[in-house]
Amino acid sequence: MDARVALERVRVVLSRPSHPGNIGAAARAMKTMGLRDLALVAPRHFPDPDAVAMAAGAEDVLAAARVYGTLDAALADCVLAVGFTSRRRDLSHPTQALREAAPEILAAAGSAPVALVFGNETSGLSNEELARCQRLVTIPADPAYASLNLAAAVQVACYELATDSAAFDAPRGGAGSAATLEDLEGLFAHLEAVALASGYLDPEKPGRFMQRVRRLFARTGLEREEVKVLRGLLAALEAKVRR
Amino acid sequence: MDARVALERVRVVLSRPSHPGNIGAAARAMKTMGLRDLALVAPRHFPDPDAVAMAAGAEDVLAAARVYGTLDAALADCVLAVGFTSRRRDLSHPTQALREAAPEILAAAGSAPVALVFGNETSGLSNEELARCQRLVTIPADPAYASLNLAAAVQVACYELATDSAAFDAPRGGAGSAATLEDLEGLFAHLEAVALASGYLDPEKPGRFMQRVRRLFARTGLEREEVKVLRGLLAALEAKVRR
Repeated sequence: MDARVALERVRVVLSRPSHPGNIGAAARAMKTMGLRDLALVAPRHFPDPDAVAMAAGAEDVLAAARVYGTLDAALADCVLAVGFTSRRRDLSHPTQALREAAPEILAAAGSAPVALVFGNETSGLSNEELARCQRLVTIPADPAYASLNLAAAVQVACYELATDSAAFDAPRGGAGSAATLEDLEGLFAHLEAVALASGYLDPEKPGRFMQRVRRLFARTGLEREEVKVLRGLLAALEAKVRR
Repeated sequence: MDARVALERVRVVLSRPSHPGNIGAAARAMKTMGLRDLALVAPRHFPDPDAVAMAAGAEDVLAAARVYGTLDAALADCVLAVGFTSRRRDLSHPTQALREAAPEILAAAGSAPVALVFGNETSGLSNEELARCQRLVTIPADPAYASLNLAAAVQVACYELATDSAAFDAPRGGAGSAATLEDLEGLFAHLEAVALASGYLDPEKPGRFMQRVRRLFARTGLEREEVKVLRGLLAALEAKVRR
């Protein structure tokens, strides 16, 4: 399945982790959500029995982890590096909430490795590390106490990506079954045709309309029945517009 | 803010936890997402220094935790009890994915306490414990290794509720600002008018079309700019259809 392949292309990069237990717990968190590519930049202690103890059944992810001397080396083959930070708005780089960023991360992982970069437990990502990331992402949290444990942050990030990708959705029956990629492409093509026929979309200057539509529906998780309803409406509009 | 009040009405119930470190880590996970009501049913060790150590800055949540002898006692004042289970489909009770269940949980917490019930680290919730829950919820995970750490599961559940409630969303500027209720109602009215004008919607028998549309866009979290784009398209279609 494509969604699972994309998850396997998402690399979790832990930069300068202090506690080996967190490395093991991060490996476990990744594995529950179908991720397996763990990279460590200058870990204080690794390998370490605490990492193995916390990995529980994810020793394979831990054993396959690669250790790098620099963040640049860990990111060398990635097409996108996403830095996780709890700081908001005090940076020149704007931060996105995790849920907003997920579709772009998954789309990029569809074709090449993508990195989720997490900083040191105490100090987070340094400014130099943040500068290596093309996107900055925040896990929205209570500003009064936004201190997620490192492995907990990894768990939430992996959960969000796995859920957005629908990789592990139970097959849903009847009205609730998820639209396939083919359903979606059919809907997008139909919508574009109607938008062109209406005169709203200028074929010479389409702008970002279809990009916006794709982004919007990527967030929605459309069901087949919903695609059917929307296409029914589009067909009725098309008939009137073309008349 | 209402969303924060609802989160404070969500109780996390840990039934028969074996490891006090997990109790502390669960308290920390809760506090990051604005939850503070922790209940423990027959914990093996509590209070315990390991719980305090893992709570990091959430000792207040830990100190306020109540200990009960039975699950029934912990749930006595709740209007909804949601059991977390990794088992799927082998129960008479159907399970929902966390993201699907979140809106109902938050809606219930708008007026009265709601419980998220987590079982023992090794054995999960027993059949008797599951029977006390009105809803069963699964965190979708890789079936090959669905073993989330207890505190990690609590973190994901709290994150999902906090994100769905938008309690800690940064005020978004410019293109990314969230549509208001007024924007949405304007969009729905416009869409209904166009669907009627197209002949797709029968004014005598509108069926569940608008209900579906509302449900679909409720999941999306539309931005103002997106509403503007959709209404632009609807206006172009309306002009053609009414001509």
